Amino acid sequence: MTGGITFWFEFASTYSYLSVMRIGELAAARGVAVTWKPFLLGPIFAAQGWDTSPFNIYPAKGRYMWRDMERICAARGLPLCRPAVFPQNGLIAARLALATGQNGIEAFTKAVFQAQFGAGKDIADETVLQRCLSTAGLDRSLMQRAQAPDIKSALRTKTDEAIAAGIFGAPSFTSGAELFWGDDRLEQALEHAAGGAI
Amino acid sequence: MTGGITFWFEFASTYSYLSVMRIGELAAARGVAVTWKPFLLGPIFAAQGWDTSPFNIYPAKGRYMWRDMERICAARGLPLCRPAVFPQNGLIAARLALATGQNGIEAFTKAVFQAQFGAGKDIADETVLQRCLSTAGLDRSLMQRAQAPDIKSALRTKTDEAIAAGIFGAPSFTSGAELFWGDDRLEQALEHAAGGAI
Repeated sequence: MTGGITFWFEFASTYSYLSVMRIGELAAARGVAVTWKPFLLGPIFAAQGWDTSPFNIYPAKGRYMWRDMERICAARGLPLCRPAVFPQNGLIAARLALATGQNGIEAFTKAVFQAQFGAGKDIADETVLQRCLSTAGLDRSLMQRAQAPDIKSALRTKTDEAIAAGIFGAPSFTSGAELFWGDDRLEQALEHAAGGAI
Repeated sequence: MTGGITFWFEFASTYSYLSVMRIGELAAARGVAVTWKPFLLGPIFAAQGWDTSPFNIYPAKGRYMWRDMERICAARGLPLCRPAVFPQNGLIAARLALATGQNGIEAFTKAVFQAQFGAGKDIADETVLQRCLSTAGLDRSLMQRAQAPDIKSALRTKTDEAIAAGIFGAPSFTSGAELFWGDDRLEQALEHAAGGAI
C-alpha cells in the first residue's frame, strides 16, 4: 500500500455517483488505500455567490450534464434515474456516512447514491436512509448517532479541510499535494497515488 | 468517411489547446472528417453575467486549471508557457482562421495555440499572427482579408450557431445531435462520429 488517496465527495453530486461506484475496485487493483471524505458543496458554492448547483444556474451546462451522465452511465452499465429534485439535501446522509466510520462508509455511500441516482429516491427522507443502512449491513441506530454534536462538527471540519485543499467541486481526489477534480481524473489520481508518473 | 464531427474552439481557451494539438491525428486514425469552427466565448460568458474567464472569477478553479494543464501537457510532451495575460483577445486570430478556409485552418490554428500556450506569446499582436501565417505556409495578405465584413459576420454567425447547439464552453464537439464538452470527451465524440456506441 502507498500513501493512498483521499476521495472527497458530496452526496448531491451527480459526477460523485460515477466515482463512488468504481473507486473501490479501481483502487484495490492498484493497491491504493482510499480515505472516504464526504463534505458539503453548499458552503463552497455560497461563498461564490451561488445559492444552488451551477447546473441549475447555467441551464445549458445543466442540460449537457444530464445527457453526459446518461451516456456515461449507459456505457458503464449503471442505472440512471433523474430525481425529481436536484440538487438534493445530502446533509443527513453526509453525517450518517461519518457516523458509519471508514469500515462501513463505502457500502453505505454506494447504497445512498444508488437510491438517489439509480432509483430517483429522495435522500433527505429518513426512511430511504434507513433502508440504505440496512442494505449496507449497518445498524439503524446510527440514525441517532448521526445527530451527535461531534459528528455535526466533524462534517463542518471536513468541509473546511476541503476548502483548505483548494477543492471547488466534487468528486475530487487528493494524493500528497496534488488535487484532481472530476470522475475523469480518477485514473490519473490513482496513478499518482500508486507512485507512477502523473 | 462518416458524417464527421464539428470541432468548436475558442482561441483564448487553454483546454482548446489540448484538442487542437491532437484532433487531426486522432480523427484521421478513426476515418472521421473534422470541420474546424472557431467561435467566441466572450458573448456566451457575458450572457451569463461573466466579464472574464470563469478561471479568473473563481480563483480555486483557476489555480486548479493551470496545474491540471501542467500535468496533462507534461504527460503528452506538449510545451506549456503560461501567458502574462489570460484570457487573451483571440478576435483577430479567429477571423484569420475563418479567412484561411478549411484547408489552412488546422495548420494556422496549431501555430497560434503553440505561440500562445507553448511560448507565452500575445496572440492579439499582429506580428505574432503574421508569423503564425508563415509557419502554416499561408499568405500574409490574409491579414487584410480577415478584416472583410463577410469574415466578421461569419464569426458572429459561428458564435450564434454555437449557442444554438447548446455550447457553453470550449473545446466542444458535435456529432449529429450529440454535444460533447471538453478535451476529455474527444475520444467519445470520435467514437460517436465513427458510428460506434457512445
